[in-house]
Amino acid sequence: MTSTTEQLSTAELSEVDRRSLVHPHTVLGSPAEPLVLDRGEGALLWDTDGRRYIDGTCGLWQCPVGHGRAELAAVAAEQIGRLEFYSSFGDYSNAPSILLADRLLSLAPAGLDRVFLTNGGSEGNETAIKLARLAHHHAGSPERTVILARTGGYHGMGGGSLAATGIEGLRTGFGPLLPDVEWLGKPHGIEHGPDATDILVAELERRIDEIGPHRIAAFIGEPVLGVGGMVPPPEGYWPRVQEVLRRHGILLIVDEIVTAFGRTGHWFGSEHFGIEPDMIVLAKGITSGYIPMGAVLIGSRVLALADGATFLHGFTYNGHPVGSAVALANIDIIERENLLDRARVLGARLRERLDPLTKLPHVREVRGVGLMLGIEFDGVPTASVQSGCRADGVVVRASGSSVVLSPPLVITEEQIDTLADVLCRHVAAAAG
Amino acid sequence: MTSTTEQLSTAELSEVDRRSLVHPHTVLGSPAEPLVLDRGEGALLWDTDGRRYIDGTCGLWQCPVGHGRAELAAVAAEQIGRLEFYSSFGDYSNAPSILLADRLLSLAPAGLDRVFLTNGGSEGNETAIKLARLAHHHAGSPERTVILARTGGYHGMGGGSLAATGIEGLRTGFGPLLPDVEWLGKPHGIEHGPDATDILVAELERRIDEIGPHRIAAFIGEPVLGVGGMVPPPEGYWPRVQEVLRRHGILLIVDEIVTAFGRTGHWFGSEHFGIEPDMIVLAKGITSGYIPMGAVLIGSRVLALADGATFLHGFTYNGHPVGSAVALANIDIIERENLLDRARVLGARLRERLDPLTKLPHVREVRGVGLMLGIEFDGVPTASVQSGCRADGVVVRASGSSVVLSPPLVITEEQIDTLADVLCRHVAAAAG
Repeated sequence: MTSTTEQLSTAELSEVDRRSLVHPHTVLGSPAEPLVLDRGEGALLWDTDGRRYIDGTCGLWQCPVGHGRAELAAVAAEQIGRLEFYSSFGDYSNAPSILLADRLLSLAPAGLDRVFLTNGGSEGNETAIKLARLAHHHAGSPERTVILARTGGYHGMGGGSLAATGIEGLRTGFGPLLPDVEWLGKPHGIEHGPDATDILVAELERRIDEIGPHRIAAFIGEPVLGVGGMVPPPEGYWPRVQEVLRRHGILLIVDEIVTAFGRTGHWFGSEHFGIEPDMIVLAKGITSGYIPMGAVLIGSRVLALADGATFLHGFTYNGHPVGSAVALANIDIIERENLLDRARVLGARLRERLDPLTKLPHVREVRGVGLMLGIEFDGVPTASVQSGCRADGVVVRASGSSVVLSPPLVITEEQIDTLADVLCRHVAAAAG
Repeated sequence: MTSTTEQLSTAELSEVDRRSLVHPHTVLGSPAEPLVLDRGEGALLWDTDGRRYIDGTCGLWQCPVGHGRAELAAVAAEQIGRLEFYSSFGDYSNAPSILLADRLLSLAPAGLDRVFLTNGGSEGNETAIKLARLAHHHAGSPERTVILARTGGYHGMGGGSLAATGIEGLRTGFGPLLPDVEWLGKPHGIEHGPDATDILVAELERRIDEIGPHRIAAFIGEPVLGVGGMVPPPEGYWPRVQEVLRRHGILLIVDEIVTAFGRTGHWFGSEHFGIEPDMIVLAKGITSGYIPMGAVLIGSRVLALADGATFLHGFTYNGHPVGSAVALANIDIIERENLLDRARVLGARLRERLDPLTKLPHVREVRGVGLMLGIEFDGVPTASVQSGCRADGVVVRASGSSVVLSPPLVITEEQIDTLADVLCRHVAAAAG
């Protein structure tokens, strides 16, 4: 065993990593040589050998305010010294979680009236699915258990959240998951042509008719597909989907784990697309990932259905005072530094810088909203683009047939330009 | 909206709580008057009105080192200032998570060889269930999907972890959960009499025979039932269960979310009961709840079955550097202050102080291991014992027909005695 205080070399850390850890999304028994990150500041990262990288992904989208904020360290330390944690089950409470709930509701779209605090995104979607079913059960429709989900959607890795995730490879080998999930096509324009919205809405109507509206609890979807490749929906999609759902008494769960807290240039992606959610699921940007945290915003229709129901649900760390205090300070930073505007302005700059790629024969699409962009390829191995960029000090992520970008909203203009230049060079080279 | 910096009165906090938050395990639309906790130190808590409480529960078992440790605040702040977080998916890594994995393996029972870091207990059980199924699938037995679970067991609130939770009321109203969970009786001596172990082992053999061993992936169980009432198994239960499982190639998932990190007087409850787990699921005590964190320890049999399988699984915050750094410092404290010994000594003291209760006609059983004890009642409302104790400055928890105790391991002898005296008084009074 290594001591906790001892400083290990990169080689030693690598050796201990490979014999001790199983990383997510790796091959069991064949650990990769790790890239051990040591330090972060703004949109920059340094590894344990002192190599510097521009963070073009925010890790997994989680960091709107960027890395290394001393202010958030101070807030966390102060709260830990006062009350590090106590369960919020039943009548136990604490001031930071109360203030955070109030703050979230003040930012949220109209009609969202209560907050259930969680510990991350998967927990949030498990919560939303359970609450949608419970609400109908309590209102006298226990047969309303079906969740409508979409191909290309990503909602997490638990038994319920994975069941609603429409990326087939992620479910393989794990046996049967939560039943009563029914599928819709991928809401991606290039897959359906110019009439994509008409086609998708007609499919939704047909599927509801086949399943029976009286059996459907909720529809779950991301405003913009995240893991699915940063795919905005075709024009006019959301208001029309919403109208169909409302007509059939189907609740709308909007998974904003990726899109909230500025990524699209708004507090919530729902504002950008004119969505009126019955529940919004949050995580990631809520604390910029400094402390694990999430939330579910609950709307008036859900509350009306479930009024008087006992919600026997909750994860230990729900309502964590440290996560709540850091979330409040993180939201302060987003406001104070106008990061919503910054996402719009820098997103446009990045999109413009990537425009030459649209002319390449092996690039199928360059797309995005705010500071979340995806470049979809045709027959080019995206992993080579990712590794080429990393060797040149730029972190991007290969995600299926796309390379995706979601830098911290504090990234500088110069860093955006470098990121775009390096990426364009490696995309051009990938044509072979 | 309230300002983040503004100090609100208790009445104001209560008002904002009730109109903004949904707490776990409450009635929707009927929020209770909250008890707003403000400060903690050791085994003491203070509310926002300055009232003091002895913490007899550790919240939800999570706090072996007690509240308000300045040392852990400093560690968290230092790590946040350096690298607050970056995803550990694929080859990304960080020193604190590497060192924590190594440390956990150095403490763990033999045969546990790798660590998958998570963000809490439910995530851990979702992970273990998925990995057990994937291991068999990869090894050519995709039909091995059944999870054997026990009445009275508690494994979490996600689609898979709740499916394996054997407390019926917690599943009601949420529709169908993860399929292929099969049930065994509650491993509780007083329900089966002096031959309890024989009866439970015979039931296990019979159920395996009925289901077909070739269909069973894993057995999941807590060394001591936690939420189920702090119920140790009947004498000799675990080695015999383990022998049966091993004979049939069924993996053993040991949920030590409650029992690890000193609660039973050992690092792991598995040591106390002679269990050789194929996986151990950890959370709570791993950081004493200061930062949400968990882990799954993975054993050699699982790794052999799954060798070469790609584990497409992971939650955003897995391998969090701040949680990992705090976990390492928390483990240091447990070691430095000999809290394992302390759990044994103070557990015995508390058990002795509660002995008079065994003579009361309305007390069915006083039981426990180390510093986790349960008092089971016969026809007495446990909620009144809980509220009576709280009014006298002692926090205990009503859990079904039991009142349960799991104070921080740093509780003083004097506090233990006060806790026991107050509890005994209210239990006696509860007879009516």
